[in-house]
Amino acid sequence: MKLKRYKKDLDYSYALGAFPTWELLDTHPQQVRRVLLHPRFNGDGALENKCQVLGIPAEYSEKAFNLLSDKENCYVICIYEKYSQTINAQRNHLILDTPSDRGNMGTVIRTAVGFGIRDIAIIGSGVDVCHPKVLRASMGAAFRLSAEYFPTFAAYWEKVGGPTRACYPFMLDGACELSSLRQTDEPYSLIFGNEATGLPQEYNLVGTSLAIRHAHEIDSLNLPIAVAIALYHFSTLGGNGINSQKAARDPH
Amino acid sequence: MKLKRYKKDLDYSYALGAFPTWELLDTHPQQVRRVLLHPRFNGDGALENKCQVLGIPAEYSEKAFNLLSDKENCYVICIYEKYSQTINAQRNHLILDTPSDRGNMGTVIRTAVGFGIRDIAIIGSGVDVCHPKVLRASMGAAFRLSAEYFPTFAAYWEKVGGPTRACYPFMLDGACELSSLRQTDEPYSLIFGNEATGLPQEYNLVGTSLAIRHAHEIDSLNLPIAVAIALYHFSTLGGNGINSQKAARDPH
Repeated sequence: MKLKRYKKDLDYSYALGAFPTWELLDTHPQQVRRVLLHPRFNGDGALENKCQVLGIPAEYSEKAFNLLSDKENCYVICIYEKYSQTINAQRNHLILDTPSDRGNMGTVIRTAVGFGIRDIAIIGSGVDVCHPKVLRASMGAAFRLSAEYFPTFAAYWEKVGGPTRACYPFMLDGACELSSLRQTDEPYSLIFGNEATGLPQEYNLVGTSLAIRHAHEIDSLNLPIAVAIALYHFSTLGGNGINSQKAARDPH
Repeated sequence: MKLKRYKKDLDYSYALGAFPTWELLDTHPQQVRRVLLHPRFNGDGALENKCQVLGIPAEYSEKAFNLLSDKENCYVICIYEKYSQTINAQRNHLILDTPSDRGNMGTVIRTAVGFGIRDIAIIGSGVDVCHPKVLRASMGAAFRLSAEYFPTFAAYWEKVGGPTRACYPFMLDGACELSSLRQTDEPYSLIFGNEATGLPQEYNLVGTSLAIRHAHEIDSLNLPIAVAIALYHFSTLGGNGINSQKAARDPH
């Protein structure tokens, strides 16, 4: 198989780096076609063992790294077949309307997984969540949730919304301040707009719009920061499924 | 004056982009030596007017942009003399021990200013806050606070700590969970470690160590995310000076 630089229309993608590769092997081993190791890769043999156990070819190759990675410190590449990602209508959702930055998307995904979110809806023409830069910025957390694309919010609503879903669009002029929200129904959807333009005004008609108050010296919080604050706050609310989930796990 | 690529030992630095330039002109006009405009800069004349009013030379030049900026979309450069930055011992502080990433530092600064922090202490060999990449990532918010370097935490403590200061080191194995903290004395210091290694264990001896609980599927939250969640949480605590400050300002 001849490797190509990543493009959205390929049916495969690349996880760059040892950490994302481990995440992929742990979560979707059946999707992995091949693992490439750089001659300077200096592991303890665990990765090669894991591949052998799973029946996945692991090969040393320098050429692929020059083609596929622009980072100096990338010594492992995992080639995997993309898989279908659909969100679960019963769970809490994070919704991003036309997110445009790959690094931001990766950071948002990593934080979302950290706060128990397993389902992201992307409305409109957002970044490609299978892009190697997104996967890498997510530290492989992208393999632990499903991201589904919808042409419009209405299409999302029709497929997985419903009268009992609580929706919270985050807007600079939101009706309610986040920290004053003390409880929520579940499932809920937290909705964020594009990095530069925010959410279109029509989202004011959807559920309860929220604002994260900040000093007027800055224009706005950046997108991954706003998402993180929202996810953190919702994780502290009464009756929140994420909390119960967390309480059940080991304290570390 | 012959321009040089930025290095830490220069006594001047560069704000890249129109937004950081405006911030600098608003906050430290007396430090500005010159503003450079790209021939493709397409402003409404306001920036040139502002420079004229302040008596600051504004010149069109393409060459400087090739030397100083690696971003395609940078059309304004502001050359300024560095100024002394010292933190105020009476106020709340953000403390970063050996932060290593310029983009992260800029994001942290932008968020800190958004939550009313005016004083950052950097312990050990951290990134240079005057680096153009930090200034740009901060969207110019770096000009709205003071960042002071200390060789050790003990040196910080000796100069601006004190028995009434509440210290909160953030550690993965923190003694108390952030969301369970319901009030704090002021002034306080929120302390964060390096991106890869966190805080050294001896910080457990300083004040009350805090953890931000997250799902075990991720290794840790990234640094600007953890800082943002902490600043947000502290902004909601009773008796918090930031809150009073915010309540006093215009709701927008």
